[in-house]
Amino acid sequence: MKILVMNGPNLNLLGKREPGVYGTGSLEEINVSLQELARTLGVGIGFMQSNHEGALIDCLHSSGAEYGAVIFNPGAFAHYSYALRDAVAAIAIPVVEVHISNIHAREDFRRLSVIAPVAAGQISGFGVMGYHLALRAAVDLARAHQGG
Amino acid sequence: MKILVMNGPNLNLLGKREPGVYGTGSLEEINVSLQELARTLGVGIGFMQSNHEGALIDCLHSSGAEYGAVIFNPGAFAHYSYALRDAVAAIAIPVVEVHISNIHAREDFRRLSVIAPVAAGQISGFGVMGYHLALRAAVDLARAHQGG
Amino acid sequence: MKILVMNGPNLNLLGKREPGVYGTGSLEEINVSLQELARTLGVGIGFMQSNHEGALIDCLHSSGAEYGAVIFNPGAFAHYSYALRDAVAAIAIPVVEVHISNIHAREDFRRLSVIAPVAAGQISGFGVMGYHLALRAAVDLARAHQGG
Amino acid sequence: MKILVMNGPNLNLLGKREPGVYGTGSLEEINVSLQELARTLGVGIGFMQSNHEGALIDCLHSSGAEYGAVIFNPGAFAHYSYALRDAVAAIAIPVVEVHISNIHAREDFRRLSVIAPVAAGQISGFGVMGYHLALRAAVDLARAHQGG
Amino acid sequence: MKILVMNGPNLNLLGKREPGVYGTGSLEEINVSLQELARTLGVGIGFMQSNHEGALIDCLHSSGAEYGAVIFNPGAFAHYSYALRDAVAAIAIPVVEVHISNIHAREDFRRLSVIAPVAAGQISGFGVMGYHLALRAAVDLARAHQGG
Amino acid sequence: MKILVMNGPNLNLLGKREPGVYGTGSLEEINVSLQELARTLGVGIGFMQSNHEGALIDCLHSSGAEYGAVIFNPGAFAHYSYALRDAVAAIAIPVVEVHISNIHAREDFRRLSVIAPVAAGQISGFGVMGYHLALRAAVDLARAHQGG
Amino acid sequence: MKILVMNGPNLNLLGKREPGVYGTGSLEEINVSLQELARTLGVGIGFMQSNHEGALIDCLHSSGAEYGAVIFNPGAFAHYSYALRDAVAAIAIPVVEVHISNIHAREDFRRLSVIAPVAAGQISGFGVMGYHLALRAAVDLARAHQGG
Amino acid sequence: MKILVMNGPNLNLLGKREPGVYGTGSLEEINVSLQELARTLGVGIGFMQSNHEGALIDCLHSSGAEYGAVIFNPGAFAHYSYALRDAVAAIAIPVVEVHISNIHAREDFRRLSVIAPVAAGQISGFGVMGYHLALRAAVDLARAHQGG
Amino acid sequence: MKILVMNGPNLNLLGKREPGVYGTGSLEEINVSLQELARTLGVGIGFMQSNHEGALIDCLHSSGAEYGAVIFNPGAFAHYSYALRDAVAAIAIPVVEVHISNIHAREDFRRLSVIAPVAAGQISGFGVMGYHLALRAAVDLARAHQGG
Amino acid sequence: MKILVMNGPNLNLLGKREPGVYGTGSLEEINVSLQELARTLGVGIGFMQSNHEGALIDCLHSSGAEYGAVIFNPGAFAHYSYALRDAVAAIAIPVVEVHISNIHAREDFRRLSVIAPVAAGQISGFGVMGYHLALRAAVDLARAHQGG
Amino acid sequence: MKILVMNGPNLNLLGKREPGVYGTGSLEEINVSLQELARTLGVGIGFMQSNHEGALIDCLHSSGAEYGAVIFNPGAFAHYSYALRDAVAAIAIPVVEVHISNIHAREDFRRLSVIAPVAAGQISGFGVMGYHLALRAAVDLARAHQGG
Amino acid sequence: MKILVMNGPNLNLLGKREPGVYGTGSLEEINVSLQELARTLGVGIGFMQSNHEGALIDCLHSSGAEYGAVIFNPGAFAHYSYALRDAVAAIAIPVVEVHISNIHAREDFRRLSVIAPVAAGQISGFGVMGYHLALRAAVDLARAHQGG
Repeated sequence: MKILVMNGPNLNLLGKREPGVYGTGSLEEINVSLQELARTLGVGIGFMQSNHEGALIDCLHSSGAEYGAVIFNPGAFAHYSYALRDAVAAIAIPVVEVHISNIHAREDFRRLSVIAPVAAGQISGFGVMGYHLALRAAVDLARAHQGG
Repeated sequence: MKILVMNGPNLNLLGKREPGVYGTGSLEEINVSLQELARTLGVGIGFMQSNHEGALIDCLHSSGAEYGAVIFNPGAFAHYSYALRDAVAAIAIPVVEVHISNIHAREDFRRLSVIAPVAAGQISGFGVMGYHLALRAAVDLARAHQGG
Repeated sequence: MKILVMNGPNLNLLGKREPGVYGTGSLEEINVSLQELARTLGVGIGFMQSNHEGALIDCLHSSGAEYGAVIFNPGAFAHYSYALRDAVAAIAIPVVEVHISNIHAREDFRRLSVIAPVAAGQISGFGVMGYHLALRAAVDLARAHQGG
Repeated sequence: MKILVMNGPNLNLLGKREPGVYGTGSLEEINVSLQELARTLGVGIGFMQSNHEGALIDCLHSSGAEYGAVIFNPGAFAHYSYALRDAVAAIAIPVVEVHISNIHAREDFRRLSVIAPVAAGQISGFGVMGYHLALRAAVDLARAHQGG
Repeated sequence: MKILVMNGPNLNLLGKREPGVYGTGSLEEINVSLQELARTLGVGIGFMQSNHEGALIDCLHSSGAEYGAVIFNPGAFAHYSYALRDAVAAIAIPVVEVHISNIHAREDFRRLSVIAPVAAGQISGFGVMGYHLALRAAVDLARAHQGG
Repeated sequence: MKILVMNGPNLNLLGKREPGVYGTGSLEEINVSLQELARTLGVGIGFMQSNHEGALIDCLHSSGAEYGAVIFNPGAFAHYSYALRDAVAAIAIPVVEVHISNIHAREDFRRLSVIAPVAAGQISGFGVMGYHLALRAAVDLARAHQGG
Repeated sequence: MKILVMNGPNLNLLGKREPGVYGTGSLEEINVSLQELARTLGVGIGFMQSNHEGALIDCLHSSGAEYGAVIFNPGAFAHYSYALRDAVAAIAIPVVEVHISNIHAREDFRRLSVIAPVAAGQISGFGVMGYHLALRAAVDLARAHQGG
Repeated sequence: MKILVMNGPNLNLLGKREPGVYGTGSLEEINVSLQELARTLGVGIGFMQSNHEGALIDCLHSSGAEYGAVIFNPGAFAHYSYALRDAVAAIAIPVVEVHISNIHAREDFRRLSVIAPVAAGQISGFGVMGYHLALRAAVDLARAHQGG
Repeated sequence: MKILVMNGPNLNLLGKREPGVYGTGSLEEINVSLQELARTLGVGIGFMQSNHEGALIDCLHSSGAEYGAVIFNPGAFAHYSYALRDAVAAIAIPVVEVHISNIHAREDFRRLSVIAPVAAGQISGFGVMGYHLALRAAVDLARAHQGG
Repeated sequence: MKILVMNGPNLNLLGKREPGVYGTGSLEEINVSLQELARTLGVGIGFMQSNHEGALIDCLHSSGAEYGAVIFNPGAFAHYSYALRDAVAAIAIPVVEVHISNIHAREDFRRLSVIAPVAAGQISGFGVMGYHLALRAAVDLARAHQGG
Repeated sequence: MKILVMNGPNLNLLGKREPGVYGTGSLEEINVSLQELARTLGVGIGFMQSNHEGALIDCLHSSGAEYGAVIFNPGAFAHYSYALRDAVAAIAIPVVEVHISNIHAREDFRRLSVIAPVAAGQISGFGVMGYHLALRAAVDLARAHQGG
Repeated sequence: MKILVMNGPNLNLLGKREPGVYGTGSLEEINVSLQELARTLGVGIGFMQSNHEGALIDCLHSSGAEYGAVIFNPGAFAHYSYALRDAVAAIAIPVVEVHISNIHAREDFRRLSVIAPVAAGQISGFGVMGYHLALRAAVDLARAHQGG
């Protein structure tokens, strides 16, 4: 089984962008740590990052062919991209939404994700660790989904 | 005269995605049926689908050179893409907005289309038949537009 | 099979009232053109217009005995008559909502119809042609309803 | 020239209903006093009262044949009857809106009239005198309208 | 003493309309059961149903001559008819508002009744039994009103 | 069969607190009258009052073991205690919500009860009589629940 | 008896400012015509105009010593000056609010006057004639106030 | 190091209450599984459940003496208990908020937690697994907190 | 005469909790200083603190037997506890609301107190001094209340 | 040290204006009583009242040269004068906001003061005594400000 | 040609007031630098500052006699002075709105200017440089206005 | 030093699209005029236009390597693209937001830019001249940024 880790807009800047909010680790470093955890959990893992809403939609559409679940940090698309919401709702495999920062402790517009109602669940505020928690959740959900 | 049929995000999944809401016909099947109706009505027809907002804007910009009217199902972009709204307002040929499902019988956010105020008219809730109605409307509007 | 065309308040003034918004054709002329189209489509047709909410409700209640579907332009009742909404929801035959003008390009209060969530679908902005599109839709819906 | 005085729902109870709010004069007494003022101003006058929204719409539609202006106290219809609003907007003669009580000193829902934006003007809070003021205004507006 | 039972729009369809929401008993059956209960309670009873707002207002105006209290299920008029609200406030006898379904467990717009603030009280959610409870309440209120 | 009558915060002060709003009868007097009615109806009855939200939740949780239905006047908890709402929704036996005063004729915040959507029904505005009506309703609901 | 006519900000520009909205008559011309009407009605008249909120408040405070009523066109202060509202509420003589244009047919913010709830009544939309109507109303109110 | 697991109102009913939403495992079973995971992670664990807001506040106040972090499922208190929010903000050790169901896929009022802005992070929608993820997060946060 | 000083949730942590917002003095130190001031003012004083809404309600109910007025810092209950509001409204002795911090200079939800409309007055933003001001106010109000 | 007492619009009418709301003491009497209290507290005192927003701003700007703190009753300016808010924020000395009536027990618009977030604190509802409390607070704040 | 530079409330304190927000230059220094730039651009320049709304309105009314355009920093009046808005709309010469700070990066109430819809354009966030940009804009607009 | 000029969706149509709103100059003509001004100001200049949100984000990310500041007309993305907002916030060089039309004099949704709070400043309503003002501002900001 493989898990896909998708990151949305501006997350390619992790480590360089507002480190007080998002931490100092780069996306590459996060991905390396996820690869290690995936090995420990006995699953494969893939990575995708894009600042293009359309590219993220395309990727979600094709994800089911190769992956058993998706970990998705939609970045700011979380707050307005109903197109991404529909893409998450349209695919069969479970999607785990992750946010690095605590979206409830920032600007008002960040508190609600239009994607959350169609995701399996949401994890926010735990920094890089949030991806690790999401990977554990995604593996369990994928197994339940395949077995169910 | 030719009519352009544009479909926005996630509509490439028609038939596979939530068939209870969107029906079981694929986009290809809809397009084939539209081609037949176009032949009956004596007009040409073109098709375009994209999950990329920018690609839809580019396509609208260039549509006037070849087409007399546009049938546009903006999918979820209907509810937030003011950029698409401005593109529809910017072009000279009439645009007919179509939605497969009854957008008033679903989530609140789907009830208002930011594109509708600058479209010629809106058809929603009639499934695949909505495209057929839209084609009849588009042909009439294009003829009136060219003659007017 | 017969289709009922119902028009609500002030639509008896069509052609005389704000022709810039509603066109210059009278309701009688529209009905004549609908009768022709009905003949082409092989269905019967009936007409009713009233400025009285209660009369429209009474008419909807009894429509199922004679008609297979209703085309309904509720006029301004669309924006507040929950009683008409309940009447539409209460009857078994499908109801197609029509608006002559593009209700999204006018005052804010016209954008939402309280009837739309219980109608089969909504067509707005196509002038007299909207009734013709609605007749085609109503015939198809009535046939599906009787066959289904 | 003749002026039509229309009164909406519950105004037939004037003098009996909440006299602290609406005064102790009956509608008949108001009409008699209006008739006297009309004679002084050299105009004819007609009266109509109904608790039926549809009857008020019908009456507005036909008013132009006999009258030069309408004085209209829509009662509570002022706050939701978009159908009456459309009827006022649809006719050519000017309409003066009157309210007996000060609608701004009561419940919140009474502060806005959906009819006011299409009326010539609005007079509220002056009790029976409001009708007298409205008659003077209506006569002037009717003369300007006929002369203009 | 006599009690008047008034039913508003679409309630003539009881038993036929959305039985999952409104039950399978017809309005006639409810009225028969109310007549029996009235006999038990030693009061007379009258019935009125209309889909016309104006007819309901007229009926409220004249109710005091014959009846000691009114049981009123305003149907969907509850949510927008300020004219009915004013009629209820204008009459001297107490009015008991009844709703068959639990209006708080359905669409948002059904949660607030504009008539409730001027009714004696409101009973909702108990199906046909709600009318029976209302009859007991109306009899007590009418006696207190006459004695007070 | 036994019915439980639960009263929430400040209802222990009945008769002493704002008698113009809540009447002059004490809670004890109400309970005595309910006991009599219960005897007439052939059911047992229990009473509980608390100003502590948690105590009311605990009581609801254990009510099913002894009682067939609950009559619940949640007092001001009605307007914000989602925890009580969840407790009502969590138990199997039906809950009848009662309010002594007409909650629609007072401050705005009292108009909506967060508990009402999960209660069987709501009775408000009838003073002490409201409890009597609620007892009749509760007995019927409990019998239907046990039989259903 | 004397009546005071007060005009608020920008009304000194009448005749020069947006004549399509406010007409072509200057404030001086309006005042002359009011003086004539006052003579006819047998009352004295005074005039005051200021663009300073504080000066209008000071003037209202001292108006009772000389005048029996005030005609007040607060201009845009109508929509936010709670200080003027309190001044109107604080004085004993009646205040008639006038607006030249129909404030309901313009921008949303103009529809509500914070002064209206404490004024005797409001007249809007009748142009210069509005002041004449207001003078008649003010004379009657002043006489009732002095006699009452 | 020890971690405290706190559960708020109605969570004592887990397994019995709406199993479609909350699953079939009891709170005791969840706690047993958490104890096992705690042993694996090399930390101690404590448990507390209450339906009383005040008891939860008291418990949070004293938690720092014995525990390094808190896992807190506030149940419905999440949506209105500003007192609990202040308690979470007042203590020095990190608090991880957990919800069993996806709070974004249910009623609107459940989407926002007033506690989330002062919690370290929030996990929702993963059922029992959510507690396991929270335990991993809490252990890491407690270690960072003690080391930082 | 005796004055009761009641403190709500989390105020037992004063001095330890967010000293930047609430100062460094403990509740005990505040109470000692109040005792001194009470002695100076010639009144007795009592103290109560609880994190339990129900305990605060119970305490308010019984306060009148021993005390002439209450000083009440409801903490975060100020912003949602309508039950406490009703308790304050239900008792005869005056209640002075105190907040240590300036509730208008913090989060939006802290700006409005649901208790303030039924309190005698509100003092906020003066730190510990606020209690001293409140004591002076409470003594005066209690004397006026007893004398009045 | 000297304290400045500033009163805004309509407060010059104290004693004459709505004595039920504002009491029967004149502003002069309040000022005399404040002068006595100032002497007791060993501070000087100055007074200023104006109905002109600009004059109040000018006065605040120059207050720091002579005074150590300001007591400010902004009257209705509290609810909309962002210019006064900016003036309060711009000066270095502390400002104590006072309202004679309980602003939370009146119209909705009076509940929020746009000045409060930049004032040191707010006292409302204690009548004339509120100024006395404010003077005590202002003296303490001025001493802390000069010493700090 | 001459340009008028108008500054509203509290801008006389520039350099002294919140220098972190508004910079350290005084209004006099800004005016000197504007005078230099005016000389370079070959235009005359005048200055006016007032904390009085009425004085600013008076000044706008008379500005057209001497000046070809106005640069206007309305300070906090921007957010509520509809009277100033009407004054800007009433005059013929163009008005350029300037704000020193970025009004979108501060409190919510500062984001919208009620004056902006009738100004020629708005410049915000560039500190003193904003006045320089505005002067260039005003000169161009004044020339276009005189030539147009 | 070089300045980057970025234009968002539909701005490639300048001169062709709604010339009444946006003027008749093409984007190429604007860019030529900006190049001239850049030469005068002694800076280099680059241009980029895209209808693709993702392309604009990518461009912002890489802009800092070559440019000292960005002039950005985000078109309709201004009103919803939180992803672009985050990109502007993420880069180190200053961004000047420009709008050709006065966004406050059009539809409501255009009044607020979600990008403005993180831009250095905003210029709107000055047509092509707005870009010239923005270039002067950008050069100054870039120099201050490099020097700071």
